[in-house]
Amino acid sequence: MSIDLTEETITAAVLQTFDGCADERMRNIFKALVQHLHDFTREVRLTGEEWFTAVDFLERVGRISSPTRQEFVLLSDILGLSVLVDQINHGNGSATDSTLLGPFFVEGRPRARNGADISGDVPGMPLFFTGTVINSQGEPVAGAAVDTWHSDGDGYYDVQQADKLHGEPAMRALLTTDDDGRFWYRSIVPRYYPVPTDGPCGEILRAADRSPMRPEHIHFWFHAENHVPLVTMLFRADDPYLERDAVFGAKRSLVADFVQHEAGEKAPDGTVMTEPFQTVEWTFVLLTAEDG
Amino acid sequence: MSIDLTEETITAAVLQTFDGCADERMRNIFKALVQHLHDFTREVRLTGEEWFTAVDFLERVGRISSPTRQEFVLLSDILGLSVLVDQINHGNGSATDSTLLGPFFVEGRPRARNGADISGDVPGMPLFFTGTVINSQGEPVAGAAVDTWHSDGDGYYDVQQADKLHGEPAMRALLTTDDDGRFWYRSIVPRYYPVPTDGPCGEILRAADRSPMRPEHIHFWFHAENHVPLVTMLFRADDPYLERDAVFGAKRSLVADFVQHEAGEKAPDGTVMTEPFQTVEWTFVLLTAEDG
Ligand SMILES: [Fe+2]
Ligand SMILES: [Fe+2]
Repeated sequence: MSIDLTEETITAAVLQTFDGCADERMRNIFKALVQHLHDFTREVRLTGEEWFTAVDFLERVGRISSPTRQEFVLLSDILGLSVLVDQINHGNGSATDSTLLGPFFVEGRPRARNGADISGDVPGMPLFFTGTVINSQGEPVAGAAVDTWHSDGDGYYDVQQADKLHGEPAMRALLTTDDDGRFWYRSIVPRYYPVPTDGPCGEILRAADRSPMRPEHIHFWFHAENHVPLVTMLFRADDPYLERDAVFGAKRSLVADFVQHEAGEKAPDGTVMTEPFQTVEWTFVLLTAEDG
Repeated sequence: MSIDLTEETITAAVLQTFDGCADERMRNIFKALVQHLHDFTREVRLTGEEWFTAVDFLERVGRISSPTRQEFVLLSDILGLSVLVDQINHGNGSATDSTLLGPFFVEGRPRARNGADISGDVPGMPLFFTGTVINSQGEPVAGAAVDTWHSDGDGYYDVQQADKLHGEPAMRALLTTDDDGRFWYRSIVPRYYPVPTDGPCGEILRAADRSPMRPEHIHFWFHAENHVPLVTMLFRADDPYLERDAVFGAKRSLVADFVQHEAGEKAPDGTVMTEPFQTVEWTFVLLTAEDG
């Protein structure tokens, strides 16, 4: 019966309305969510004005959101929820560590062949990446889909400079591993960067006097038949923001060697380079359902 | 230090990033919010897929939202948060009870003079409403701004039938109390109705097999100089949904007498009516800051 509810009786009344939820998992999630949201609201004695501010905040997060501006993901990231969800689900240490997805993955990314230059002609220091995907037995995983995306040398993703790039994707691609589980591409060296602070999430960071900076990284998302998908990133050693990542995602196990080469040296594809460049190699270990 | 965080250490690391929040109230609110969101996430062992579902849900709430479609307010309403916030802030019993705002208040509502017909020519049984606004000493509150809004006889608000009404407001107005604290208007009799179920919130109600119905009511929002604003509603006795309001807002103290009159009887404005009609009278008590 939901009439004349008080601060003390309302939570039980709301919880009861989820009793009829046929999906047990959903029922448990909603009951826990209601309990925690109500406890939070009572604990801080949320005022009506603060409630309006919260509603307005969420509306503005919604308004700025688009397929290339994922502000709800960013909100989850800066509150540490994204990494917490990752930790809960990928706590074991036998595969490559996973970490958060971040707000810059885009569904409409181009396919690329191994060896392709995926920089989209964005200027920067050349980077040659070579990856190998194996299973927990050390066997190559052939035909795995590999999403990779990263920023430019100023710390901006393609979707943050759509005007300049005429909306064309750059520094992102979907590749496929060869029979030896290998994938490789040319791009440009990324850089540490601030998460976007021109939207509602920026207000939280400024109010809390929090740094918006993320250490330099390259994103990867692997999908392979019979294997557990893996969302991860590689970081650069000695990055000034490695130990204070604004979204809590950095891990020492994911720190790679970005090897510096000088002009005149040979790139992995055999080209004698006329400018300095960097190379990164990494082996990614995917789990199968049986591993888990 | 936010590197290599685990399920056990991440919450403390995130809480710490709010230490620099200069506004103490905001700092406390964010810390409590992070603690409860993390506890919820750990408690239900939220999966990555469920996290995606939640992000997608919030994005869709954002996408359907507009100044006349307040789905975030509705989400707060169906989770009982809106009424909880109201209870926390208006627990005392010396004034007219308050209740939730609901998702149908619209900023761009027309001003109307007392006695005006605010129905916007929407057909329905005539309703004559007469209100008096007083303070806790029983003195009239003159010059109070009175927002009122309600559904039509089928349970739909103007904003839900913008096509039919050519976007014109109807069954809503901003009035002002006269020197005796009185306000009065003509409109049509509203009806119980389902909250909108064609958006994301409808998915929750259907999944939980919850009724979307609200008992019949008229909304009021009072603003008067030196008085505490009051958001409230009046309900009809014997309404089939009075004891199972989908948004937990019904109160017995707000049940009014909707008096039925037959054709040939005189309306409060002296007109001899040629059709059946209803009248409602109510006295609203506003608090001042001194009332506490
Ligand atoms: Fe990134
Ligand atoms: Fe309503």
